[in-house]
Amino acid sequence: MERVKVGVIGTGFIGPAHIEALRRLGNVDVVALAERSEDLARAKAALLGVGTYYGDYGQLLKEEHIQSVHICSPNYLHYEMAKAALAAGKHVVCEKPLAIHISEAEELVELADKKGLANAVNFNIRYYPLMRQIRAMVEKGDVGEIFAVQGSYLQDWLFYPTDYNWRLEPEHAGPSRAIADIGSHWMDLIEYITGLRIKDVCADFATFHKTRKKPLRPVETYVGKVLKPEDYQDIAIHTEDYATVLLRFENDGRGVMTVNQVAAGRKNRLYFELNGSKESVAWDSESPNQIWIGKRNGNNEILMRDPSLVYPECIELIDYPGGHNEGFPDTFKQLFKEVYAFITSDRTKAPCFPTFKDGLREIILCKTILESSVNRTWIKVT
Amino acid sequence: MERVKVGVIGTGFIGPAHIEALRRLGNVDVVALAERSEDLARAKAALLGVGTYYGDYGQLLKEEHIQSVHICSPNYLHYEMAKAALAAGKHVVCEKPLAIHISEAEELVELADKKGLANAVNFNIRYYPLMRQIRAMVEKGDVGEIFAVQGSYLQDWLFYPTDYNWRLEPEHAGPSRAIADIGSHWMDLIEYITGLRIKDVCADFATFHKTRKKPLRPVETYVGKVLKPEDYQDIAIHTEDYATVLLRFENDGRGVMTVNQVAAGRKNRLYFELNGSKESVAWDSESPNQIWIGKRNGNNEILMRDPSLVYPECIELIDYPGGHNEGFPDTFKQLFKEVYAFITSDRTKAPCFPTFKDGLREIILCKTILESSVNRTWIKVT
Amino acid sequence: MERVKVGVIGTGFIGPAHIEALRRLGNVDVVALAERSEDLARAKAALLGVGTYYGDYGQLLKEEHIQSVHICSPNYLHYEMAKAALAAGKHVVCEKPLAIHISEAEELVELADKKGLANAVNFNIRYYPLMRQIRAMVEKGDVGEIFAVQGSYLQDWLFYPTDYNWRLEPEHAGPSRAIADIGSHWMDLIEYITGLRIKDVCADFATFHKTRKKPLRPVETYVGKVLKPEDYQDIAIHTEDYATVLLRFENDGRGVMTVNQVAAGRKNRLYFELNGSKESVAWDSESPNQIWIGKRNGNNEILMRDPSLVYPECIELIDYPGGHNEGFPDTFKQLFKEVYAFITSDRTKAPCFPTFKDGLREIILCKTILESSVNRTWIKVT
Amino acid sequence: MERVKVGVIGTGFIGPAHIEALRRLGNVDVVALAERSEDLARAKAALLGVGTYYGDYGQLLKEEHIQSVHICSPNYLHYEMAKAALAAGKHVVCEKPLAIHISEAEELVELADKKGLANAVNFNIRYYPLMRQIRAMVEKGDVGEIFAVQGSYLQDWLFYPTDYNWRLEPEHAGPSRAIADIGSHWMDLIEYITGLRIKDVCADFATFHKTRKKPLRPVETYVGKVLKPEDYQDIAIHTEDYATVLLRFENDGRGVMTVNQVAAGRKNRLYFELNGSKESVAWDSESPNQIWIGKRNGNNEILMRDPSLVYPECIELIDYPGGHNEGFPDTFKQLFKEVYAFITSDRTKAPCFPTFKDGLREIILCKTILESSVNRTWIKVT
Repeated sequence: MERVKVGVIGTGFIGPAHIEALRRLGNVDVVALAERSEDLARAKAALLGVGTYYGDYGQLLKEEHIQSVHICSPNYLHYEMAKAALAAGKHVVCEKPLAIHISEAEELVELADKKGLANAVNFNIRYYPLMRQIRAMVEKGDVGEIFAVQGSYLQDWLFYPTDYNWRLEPEHAGPSRAIADIGSHWMDLIEYITGLRIKDVCADFATFHKTRKKPLRPVETYVGKVLKPEDYQDIAIHTEDYATVLLRFENDGRGVMTVNQVAAGRKNRLYFELNGSKESVAWDSESPNQIWIGKRNGNNEILMRDPSLVYPECIELIDYPGGHNEGFPDTFKQLFKEVYAFITSDRTKAPCFPTFKDGLREIILCKTILESSVNRTWIKVT
Repeated sequence: MERVKVGVIGTGFIGPAHIEALRRLGNVDVVALAERSEDLARAKAALLGVGTYYGDYGQLLKEEHIQSVHICSPNYLHYEMAKAALAAGKHVVCEKPLAIHISEAEELVELADKKGLANAVNFNIRYYPLMRQIRAMVEKGDVGEIFAVQGSYLQDWLFYPTDYNWRLEPEHAGPSRAIADIGSHWMDLIEYITGLRIKDVCADFATFHKTRKKPLRPVETYVGKVLKPEDYQDIAIHTEDYATVLLRFENDGRGVMTVNQVAAGRKNRLYFELNGSKESVAWDSESPNQIWIGKRNGNNEILMRDPSLVYPECIELIDYPGGHNEGFPDTFKQLFKEVYAFITSDRTKAPCFPTFKDGLREIILCKTILESSVNRTWIKVT
Repeated sequence: MERVKVGVIGTGFIGPAHIEALRRLGNVDVVALAERSEDLARAKAALLGVGTYYGDYGQLLKEEHIQSVHICSPNYLHYEMAKAALAAGKHVVCEKPLAIHISEAEELVELADKKGLANAVNFNIRYYPLMRQIRAMVEKGDVGEIFAVQGSYLQDWLFYPTDYNWRLEPEHAGPSRAIADIGSHWMDLIEYITGLRIKDVCADFATFHKTRKKPLRPVETYVGKVLKPEDYQDIAIHTEDYATVLLRFENDGRGVMTVNQVAAGRKNRLYFELNGSKESVAWDSESPNQIWIGKRNGNNEILMRDPSLVYPECIELIDYPGGHNEGFPDTFKQLFKEVYAFITSDRTKAPCFPTFKDGLREIILCKTILESSVNRTWIKVT
Repeated sequence: MERVKVGVIGTGFIGPAHIEALRRLGNVDVVALAERSEDLARAKAALLGVGTYYGDYGQLLKEEHIQSVHICSPNYLHYEMAKAALAAGKHVVCEKPLAIHISEAEELVELADKKGLANAVNFNIRYYPLMRQIRAMVEKGDVGEIFAVQGSYLQDWLFYPTDYNWRLEPEHAGPSRAIADIGSHWMDLIEYITGLRIKDVCADFATFHKTRKKPLRPVETYVGKVLKPEDYQDIAIHTEDYATVLLRFENDGRGVMTVNQVAAGRKNRLYFELNGSKESVAWDSESPNQIWIGKRNGNNEILMRDPSLVYPECIELIDYPGGHNEGFPDTFKQLFKEVYAFITSDRTKAPCFPTFKDGLREIILCKTILESSVNRTWIKVT
C-alpha cells in the first residue's frame, strides 16, 4: 500500500477521533497537528503521540510531505482553513459544516474541483455499514417506491440552561444549531440512502432555554456535562434547541424530521423509518448493528450486520463478523478508508464518500429550513 | 352492585369487543343487539349469546328496561343513532368519531347535557393503565414543563391497493381517514395526558394509492387482509393514507404527529415521546405494559405496569399484577368500568372518561387539520 | 350456543380471573361461588356480581343445574375438591397443581376418565396464541430437530424476607415452591410446544431467605407487595426460592430451566429459546404478542400475533387483529373457550386443552426434580 | 508517552484486530509480524502495512528492539510461543486459551513471574466499559449479595454440518470447544465482575453434528460461512457443540451458563443476569452500550455507557460520549491501553488486566467441566 502523510488541524473532541481512525487504516501516518497556540499544540502532540506540532495551521500547510489535511476546528474556521489547504495543494477532509455561508461552500467546491484534489466532509453516519445496505436495498428495488420517511435526532447534552458550549454562539457555529449540527446528518443520510432529494420544507423551530449560563472558563464539547453550576454569566440564546421539519421529496414522497438537543435521556439518538411500497425499513443509532424490515404479508425481519447476510456493497464496510458490534469510531475508519483509497488511486472514478458538494448541499438545506421557520411557511429548496 | 341493562347497536369488528368487555364488569347485562337486518341480527345474537335482537335499532331504543346503548355502527350513522338514543332517554357510549360534522357533534353534546344522561366516546387508548400514570406524572410535576411531543400512529391494513373497506369512502366515514381514524386517538391521548390543548396546526397529507380495487362483496374491517385479489372494481380515493401535522400547544410547547395506514410491518402501532424540562416519557403501544422515562443526570427507567410501582390514580385501572400483561381488550373494560360506575352513581361528580365534549373536540381538530392540509399553511384551532 | 352453568370455588387472586374470563365466552353463566365462610362468600358474590354463594363448597356441588366447577382454592385443597366435584358429576377445571401427591393425581385422572367428565388444569400460558403457532411450526418441521431449549421463569414478589404468602408453607402449597408454582408452567409449555417429553433431570435448588417474616394478618397473593414491614413473626423456610434444572428430552435434545422468585425487577417473566436444526424460536412473556425466529442464512424474524400471518391452528386462539395486543386475561378466555366447546360437544374428539393427565405429569416432574436436587444427581423421569 | 515496539505472531482473524487496536493507542508501533511461511508473512505485511515480516516466529523473537509480542496463532501453538517469547525477554499478550494443558499454563505463569515480564490473556469482553461499571457496582454493594447468575454465549457460525474450522479439531484447539472458546469468556467475565470464584460445576455436553464435512482447502474463521458445500470430506466430531453447566460460587450463590455454537440466528451473543439481594443487573452483548438494572420497589433502569452516568472506575474505559456507541474493536483497544500503561510504568502496581493467572484459571475450569460432563456429576474446582 502507498503510504500517505496527514496533518490534523484542531484537536478538541473530534480531532482525536480522526487521528485514531486514521491510524487504523495501516497506510496513513498522522505526522503533524496544529492548534491555536504552540503550547496547546505541544501538549496535544505529546498526549496523542503525534511527532510534529504547530501553533499556527499555516505552518502545517507549508510542509510539502503532508499530502492531506483534516480540519477539526470550530465551524467558523472551516472555510478559511479548507481554502488555504486546497491552495497549498492538500487533499482535505473537513468536519461539517463545510462553511457558514453558501457562497463560501460554493467557492470551496469550485476550488477543489479546479485543483483536482480529494475533498470530503465527515458525514460519518453514512458509514454505519447497514446504511450502505439500506441504500443498496432501495437501489435494487427491495423497498419499492418511497412513500414516507420519518425520524429524529435527539440529544440531551444541552438539556440544562447551565449547559454551555461554543456551538450555542452563532458567531462561532453559524445561525442554526440543532438543524446544522444534527439535522444535517439526518438529511444527508436520508438523501444518501433513498437517492431522493428534498424539494420542499416547512419548519417549526423552538428555543426552550432563551437564556443560558456561560461558564467563565472554556469547556470542550460533551465534557461540559460534568461541570459544576457556578461562575456562569447569562447569555441570550438565538439558535434553536428544537426543530421539526416537514419534507417533500422529488418523487412527491413525504417526510418529517425532528431534532432536539434538550431531550432528556436521549444521549445521541438518530432514528428513521422508511415506508416503501414493498416494505418498511427502520434504524436506531443506539442499536447500530441491526435494521428492522417491516412486511405486510410476511414476518417482520431483523437484519444483523453480518457479512454473510448483506449485499456486496455493504460487505466492504464491515471489518468484523456478525455479532461483533462495530460502533461510532468505526464509521470514521470506514469513511477515511474510502477517502484514502481514492487518494491513492488514479482518481478517475467518482468518489463514493461525501464530498464538498454534499457539504454545500447541507448548507443550502439548512438555510432554506431556517427561512421556512422564520416565515412559518413551505419553501422550495433551490 | 346495581345491575344495568345494555343494548348494542352494530356488531361488525368493534361491537363484539364492546360486548365481551361489558360482560367482564359483573354488573352489566348485555340484553339486546341491533343490526341492519333482522337476519343478520339473529345470526349475531346466536353467535354472541345475546338474548334479544332487532333488525332496526329504533326498536331496541323503545325497550324501556334498556338503560344504556353502545353505538358501534359505521361512522356516518353515529349522529342519528346517538341523537335517537338520547331522545329515548338512554345513556350512550358511542364509537368514535362522535359525528361527521361539527354542528352534529355540538347538537349531541347539548342534548346529552340537557337530558342529564351519561355520554361517552370510546377513546379507549387512554385506558391503557400507564396512560393514567403518565397523566399523573405530568400533573404532579415529575415531567416538568412540556417542551415537545413527537409520535405516530402507523398501520398496514390498507397497505395494498387491493385493501378495501367502508372507511375509504367519505360518504360512510367522513372526509378525513387517517387523521380521523387514528390521528384522533393520538391527539385525544396527548391532550389527555399532558393536560395541554393544541392551539395551532400545520398539516401535510398524502394519498399514496390514488385508486383502489373495491371487492364486489362486503368485507369486515381487518379481516379484509386475507382476501384474494379478484373481482374488484376501481375506485378513486380522496381521503388521506398519510398525514404529518406540526402542532403548537397552549403553553407554546411543540409537537408533531405522523399517521400512516400503509406502513408495512406496523400492524397498529401508536408511539409518543414527551420531552419535558425535568424528564422525558415514551410509550409504544406494541409494549403497552411499560413506559420509558428519560433522564439527563441519572439512569433512564422502565416503569412496568405494576400496582406497587404506580400512582394511586393509575392503580384503579389495573386488575392484574405486574408481569401479567393487560392489552387492548382490557382498555374497553376499564373505560366501561368508569362509565358504569358513573351511571350507577348519583352523577354529581364530573366524569373521568371521555365524553361527547371530547368527541366534539376531535372533530374540530380533524376539520382544522384538513383545512391546513388543503391550504398548506398553519391554522389556529378555534 | 348451548349455555352452561358454572360454579367457582375459591375467590382469592385467581378465582375472579376465572370468573371474568368465563363471562367473555358468551355461553357460560357463572351462577354460584363458594368460599371458606358464608360471610366471605356473601361479600365476594356482591363484589363479583355472582347470584348465589356458599360458605361450604359441598353445598355448591349439590346444585344439579351446575354442570361445571372451577377449583381456585389453595393447593392443598385441590385434590379433595376435584374428587368431590367429579363424584357429584361435574366437569372440573382445576387450578394447578392438580394435587400435592402423585397418587392423588392418579386417582383424579382415573375418576374423571371413569365418569366421562371434562377435566382441565389451568396451564394457561399455553393459550398465548403464539404458543400454538410455535407448536404448529415444530409439528410442520419448520424448526427442524430440537437440539436445545433454554429458559427461565423469574419473579420478584418474594424478593424481600418480609414477603409472605401461604405458598411458602409446605402444608398448604406442597413440598416444592418455585418449581411447582412456575417451573411447572414452563415445563408444561415446553413439552406442549415441542411435543417432546423430558426424560432425565438434574437439579440445583437454593433457598436464599432461610427465614421469612410472616405477617400476623392474612394477605392475598401479589397484593402482599404493598405491606408495611411490621407485626411479623419469624418462619423457617424449607421450599426453594430458586432452582435450575438440566433436562434431557426423549430425542436426546438438551434443556435447562431456571426459576427464581427473588429476582429483582422480573415481575413475572417466562422466557424460552428453542434451538432447532433449521431455525431458533424465542419468546418472552413480557412481549407476548411476538416471537423471535433465528436464522443462520437469512434475516432473523419477528412474527407478530396477527391472524393473517399465522398458521390456521393459531388463528383459532386470536380474537383481535394484529397490533391489538392480547394479554394474560385473554389466555384464560381461550383456554376456557376450548374447554366449554368440548363440554358442549359430543366429547368424542380428544381434548386439545391441558387435562388432569397433564396435571399429573407436572406433579411427577416436580417430584423427580425435588429428588434430584436432594441427591445432587441426574434422575430419570419415570 | 514512551513508545513501545511490538511484534505480532499470527494474522488470521484475530491478529489484524490486535494490530489495528494497537495502532489506536498512539504510543505503540507494530513493527513486525510473523506467519507460518515467508510468502504468507510478506503478503500479510503488505496488506496490513507492517514494515517487517518473518516466516518463522523465532526470528521475530530475536529482534532486540521488539519489547512486546502478541500471540494470535491457533490454540495448540500458544504455549510454545509464549514460552519462547518470555525466554526472549518479551512482554506477552496471548490469545486465549493460554495453553492446552494445565501444566503448560502453570509453567507460563511461573516463567512470566520469574522474568518479571508483563503477561496478559485477551479476555477482551471484560473491556466493554459497562463490565467495569458492574464490577464497581458489585464492589460498592449496590447489587447486594449475589444470589444467582444466569446466562449464555450463543453463536451460529458452526450451525451447518458443512461449517468447518480448525477449532473443531482437538489436536489444534484442545479437547473442549464451546466451553473453551466461548464459555471461558463467560466465566472469566462473571468471576471478574462478581469477584466470586466458581467452586463446583455440573455439566451436560452435547455434540449435535457428530460428523462434519471438512473442505479440502483451508478457510479462515467466520469467513467459512460463505463457502459452497462442495469438495468436503467427512470428519467425526468429538468436541461439544453445546454445553450447559450448573455452577456454585464460593458464597454459595448459584449459577448456570449455556454455550452453543449451533444456535441459529445468534451470531455471537453473550448474555448474563445477576440476581442480587438489592437489585438485578443484566447485559446483552448485542446491545453492549447499556445495562439493565432490575428493582423490586422502584422502576427498572437502563444505564447507558455515558461518562457522566458511571463510576470513575468505568470512565477510564470510555473514549466516546454517551450515545456514540463503542463496540468489539474498542474492547481490544482498552485492554491493550491498560497493558501498555503497565508496561511503560514501573510495574509495581498489580495489573488490572487479565494475566496468565487468569488464563490458567480458565483452563482449570474447562478441564473440571469436561470431567463433570464425562462423569455426569458435580465436581469441585480445585
